[in-house]
Amino acid sequence: MSEFRKDPVLDRWTIIDASRKINKVLDYGKYPEDISKCPFCPGNEFMVKHNILTIAKEGDLKNWELKVVPNTKPILNVETVLKREAYGIYDKMCGVGAHEIFIETPQHFIKAQDVPMHYYETLYKALAMRIKDLRKDSRLEYILFFKNYGKFANALLEHPHSQLIAMPTIPGTIKTEIDSSRNYFDSKERCVFCDIIAQEISSSLRIVYENDLFISFCPYASRYPFETWILPKNHQSDFDFIEKDEIESLSRITKEVLSKIIRTLDNCSYNYMLHTSPLKNINIPFYHWYISIKPAVINDIGFEWDSGLYINPVAPEHAAKFLRDLY
Amino acid sequence: MSEFRKDPVLDRWTIIDASRKINKVLDYGKYPEDISKCPFCPGNEFMVKHNILTIAKEGDLKNWELKVVPNTKPILNVETVLKREAYGIYDKMCGVGAHEIFIETPQHFIKAQDVPMHYYETLYKALAMRIKDLRKDSRLEYILFFKNYGKFANALLEHPHSQLIAMPTIPGTIKTEIDSSRNYFDSKERCVFCDIIAQEISSSLRIVYENDLFISFCPYASRYPFETWILPKNHQSDFDFIEKDEIESLSRITKEVLSKIIRTLDNCSYNYMLHTSPLKNINIPFYHWYISIKPAVINDIGFEWDSGLYINPVAPEHAAKFLRDLY
Repeated sequence: MSEFRKDPVLDRWTIIDASRKINKVLDYGKYPEDISKCPFCPGNEFMVKHNILTIAKEGDLKNWELKVVPNTKPILNVETVLKREAYGIYDKMCGVGAHEIFIETPQHFIKAQDVPMHYYETLYKALAMRIKDLRKDSRLEYILFFKNYGKFANALLEHPHSQLIAMPTIPGTIKTEIDSSRNYFDSKERCVFCDIIAQEISSSLRIVYENDLFISFCPYASRYPFETWILPKNHQSDFDFIEKDEIESLSRITKEVLSKIIRTLDNCSYNYMLHTSPLKNINIPFYHWYISIKPAVINDIGFEWDSGLYINPVAPEHAAKFLRDLY
Repeated sequence: MSEFRKDPVLDRWTIIDASRKINKVLDYGKYPEDISKCPFCPGNEFMVKHNILTIAKEGDLKNWELKVVPNTKPILNVETVLKREAYGIYDKMCGVGAHEIFIETPQHFIKAQDVPMHYYETLYKALAMRIKDLRKDSRLEYILFFKNYGKFANALLEHPHSQLIAMPTIPGTIKTEIDSSRNYFDSKERCVFCDIIAQEISSSLRIVYENDLFISFCPYASRYPFETWILPKNHQSDFDFIEKDEIESLSRITKEVLSKIIRTLDNCSYNYMLHTSPLKNINIPFYHWYISIKPAVINDIGFEWDSGLYINPVAPEHAAKFLRDLY
């Protein structure tokens, strides 16, 4: 069983999970998968335990468009009792939570730039439903939603999928974002993200794409080349409070931005992650949900891992211009 | 010229350096180098601008053991005037600082487990000298010393070398360590690292190796499999205040620990980094310098990059036992 352990110096939790499969460094850039055994392909349904959620055309479950299933080797497990303990000067707690896989389509080989528009609408609708459902479990503090696309982004399976991990603590980076944006609000009574959006619109240098409700830009202090964010223009701290028209608008910008990244960077792998408010902070004025996308362009396994200082060889103004100008 | 830019949400600096060579993701695990053109090998001295420091046997400079040279493509440059500016809500400053390469030996192919003991003594002696010298520049706030060893740890050259980057700000992770250990001290009037050492000695589960003055263990909340720290047993916040007998003891433990890691993990690549006190915080009671070592065993380019949450598939107790028990 997995265990959360806290680093007393960095005030940061790590999950120790000795049952987890190791994706060895020597396998970098390879799919370990035998395609006929893909557990996400139609016909192989017996490989997953059960469906948590199925979205299907006209209610015909065999004609499914998206499925949410439990990870067969979950990092966190919902059937555990949450127990927090001291271990000398250290802190630990058991690995309670949920680990769900979003099988985004029945099609194994479809590429992000070729999917129909309702692909992302279905994905975001399902995600909002899952977050709303998991909110009911009072042990949970945060829901991490992310996607590893492509073999250089550490995707273990090629079949398009994303992942949700619901956990009893707030991940370190999100905690820092919450604390820092609260400080900003306390001093200025404005959301720091709303201020960033205003400045990016006014300078327009780093904008990749925008539509009526959403904006996408390469952030000013980008850590990685072509790092790109997507944010709602109107203040909103919780992703799952998204409205129907916003889902449509978000789907359009997601498809546009991911297609630009993939086409500009030669079908590169990428990671994306949703930053949303912690489950117990609802409708807060100082935090603003967003999606961060990191194309797998460079190796970054140097001193960055332990210094928190990143060196980015591509200025975000140049990256944004490349992406923006792609017809 | 490179530029420091601050992320207003995460309160963290990034260096944007468009002149930097990109180590592409497709080149992962390869050395781009033509060995006959290795700028660190004897005979190719003309390729480096000048020597900052040379340590040689019996003062015969041709018979050098270690050289410190400026990086020919430095991330930061000492000849710049430090200028801090606002850019709307953002902050920036120019990339002032130093970027030095420690050529650890004239021998291109020597492996860490085969080096003589005085190899590390020479390296640490040179590092302490360089830090003492750079302390005189009042623009500098921090000195980052690190090594990328092996092609899977993003080393661009095979010739054994480590790097020093002196900079006008404190890297994000170090800042967090300083703040957090100061809070711990304010509440308990004890150094958190001294407390950690006491607990590790008393449990002995995670100890890899220890000698009279130093201890090495796999930290309780290790983020990576076989992550290993080396710390002085006696409280000391600044690496460059190290005494002669401590350098000998540190060299012995460094050679022992790196040899164990390399032999246990099949000549793996690794990164190591020195965590020492910021230049303007001297002899502080709450911080404790240490060396962190991360063997390149697994891929970790998933949601970790943007969540700060790490999943480690090898418990540090198991990792330490493997390393400790190796004859």
